[in-house]
Amino acid sequence: MATKHVRQSKWDASWVTDGANQQWKGTALIKLEVADEIRRMKSGIGKFPRLAVVLVGDRRDSHTFIHIKLKACDQVGIETVASQLPENCDESELLDVVSGFNEDPDVHGILVQLPLPQHLDEEKIINVVSLEKDVDGFHPLNIGNLAIRGRKPFFVPCAPKGCIELLPRHGVEIKGKRAVIIGRSKIVGLPTSLLLQRHHATVSVLHAYTKNPEHITSEADIVVVDVGVPNIVCGNWIKKGAVVIDMGTNQVKDPSGHGFCVSGDVCFEEAVKVASAITPVPGGVGPVTISMLLSNTLDSAKRAFGMV
Amino acid sequence: MATKHVRQSKWDASWVTDGANQQWKGTALIKLEVADEIRRMKSGIGKFPRLAVVLVGDRRDSHTFIHIKLKACDQVGIETVASQLPENCDESELLDVVSGFNEDPDVHGILVQLPLPQHLDEEKIINVVSLEKDVDGFHPLNIGNLAIRGRKPFFVPCAPKGCIELLPRHGVEIKGKRAVIIGRSKIVGLPTSLLLQRHHATVSVLHAYTKNPEHITSEADIVVVDVGVPNIVCGNWIKKGAVVIDMGTNQVKDPSGHGFCVSGDVCFEEAVKVASAITPVPGGVGPVTISMLLSNTLDSAKRAFGMV
Repeated sequence: MATKHVRQSKWDASWVTDGANQQWKGTALIKLEVADEIRRMKSGIGKFPRLAVVLVGDRRDSHTFIHIKLKACDQVGIETVASQLPENCDESELLDVVSGFNEDPDVHGILVQLPLPQHLDEEKIINVVSLEKDVDGFHPLNIGNLAIRGRKPFFVPCAPKGCIELLPRHGVEIKGKRAVIIGRSKIVGLPTSLLLQRHHATVSVLHAYTKNPEHITSEADIVVVDVGVPNIVCGNWIKKGAVVIDMGTNQVKDPSGHGFCVSGDVCFEEAVKVASAITPVPGGVGPVTISMLLSNTLDSAKRAFGMV
Repeated sequence: MATKHVRQSKWDASWVTDGANQQWKGTALIKLEVADEIRRMKSGIGKFPRLAVVLVGDRRDSHTFIHIKLKACDQVGIETVASQLPENCDESELLDVVSGFNEDPDVHGILVQLPLPQHLDEEKIINVVSLEKDVDGFHPLNIGNLAIRGRKPFFVPCAPKGCIELLPRHGVEIKGKRAVIIGRSKIVGLPTSLLLQRHHATVSVLHAYTKNPEHITSEADIVVVDVGVPNIVCGNWIKKGAVVIDMGTNQVKDPSGHGFCVSGDVCFEEAVKVASAITPVPGGVGPVTISMLLSNTLDSAKRAFGMV
């Protein structure tokens, strides 16, 4: 039976399975659930979640990401307040903005769009975000509590949380499976490895110093890739029937020769022939990640309102 | 050439190599270095490190560990202050003791001996220990900062830090090596996996849900075991030439039939025939771990005295 290959709208995470297209409506479903809870919250107690977004500088990709996030908030009824600072702003200005949102009881989530300009100390800024409002989950105390079994972080970072939403909803059991994470960024690779361990996968983390990454990868049932190099993972790295989650988002020249398009880290055309399921880029985990931001912001508001 | 097998005094971490006994004097050396720094500190500024030790209840093993730690402090010139609470103490009493040490400027390290009696909330107690005095390195913020590349925890937990002392001092390069950690305790397995990743090993974490642990282990260059089951790792799990670090400490019946003795998690007699180096139990990593507690306490005092 031929494997089918579907790329689709950016609001759906598509999965391709042997012989059947599974168009995952999970992202839309999560957004509907969040929107529904917020509607009931508004009519019940007259309150709603609010997300503060902080953007520094003029990076085009950051502007695009913020635009997508704000739009998604708007769709589900999360109010947003955005603060934009110039590229050359002082660290103290940025810290003041974050502190202001920390102290504002009507703000339930704070998102500082990364990366920040070089002259700003990213670590220092993230440390200042109130733990209870760290909807990105990047504060080291949230990461520590994610790492330590038995503890509960306030927030799980959105990209890994999206992975964990995708897998069980597609009938992929994590417990006892071998998972390989390729790449160890603090935003994706690290928290994904910690979260998959929480779900009792046997996790190996691969990186630039790993010898024979293709061999280790070929033993994995679940492969998560976030390297930032287009098509670095080839089809022959993937075990027959494995599940592949491609977190890469690379701007590459369009094959037509005109302009650019977005490509993942996995050679989709090859991997789709051996994987039992694979997320395409674009349209794969990106939208799920954003829906997790909405869900984290809602959770934070519920905590603030004493609803959990 | 026959492999030699040495078990030795508890103050030395012994390593056995093909055809040569390497009696590692590293532990003694580290203690000498710490003692020397403290001597110079005393004569220079008239100050010295002080460690506070908190023990709850009457567990025999905890008493033994505390005794060993206090003795080691004494040997290098670290002053100690011990607080012992009864098995049935209130959580508030214990919290008061820890808070008192937090506020005492003459205390540079606080060690709460684990495990605590069941009725006490271990997580809550560890959270209360001042970050700057958490010489065990178990606070989630220290673990988070250990996990996130580019960040620096105040303290690295003693057992993993001991591993990292052992390996390079024995000419074992970590970067690019495959490391398997068997067991994922928050005291040993978790922080060791994070620390080996920091040193650019390719790390896989194995646990109770791992299928075929022997297969994955047999591909590793460095094997760290902390499961708590005597002899669970057999010789045929180990790749020829691998380095084996046995963190297990199990009380087992003495083969003579009289009383008990201490055994590791690795079947030493088998593994020693294939490993290029292996730490025995007793006498292996235990003493190194304690010397790391001394080194963490010294570091803390140096920070407090503005010496770093």
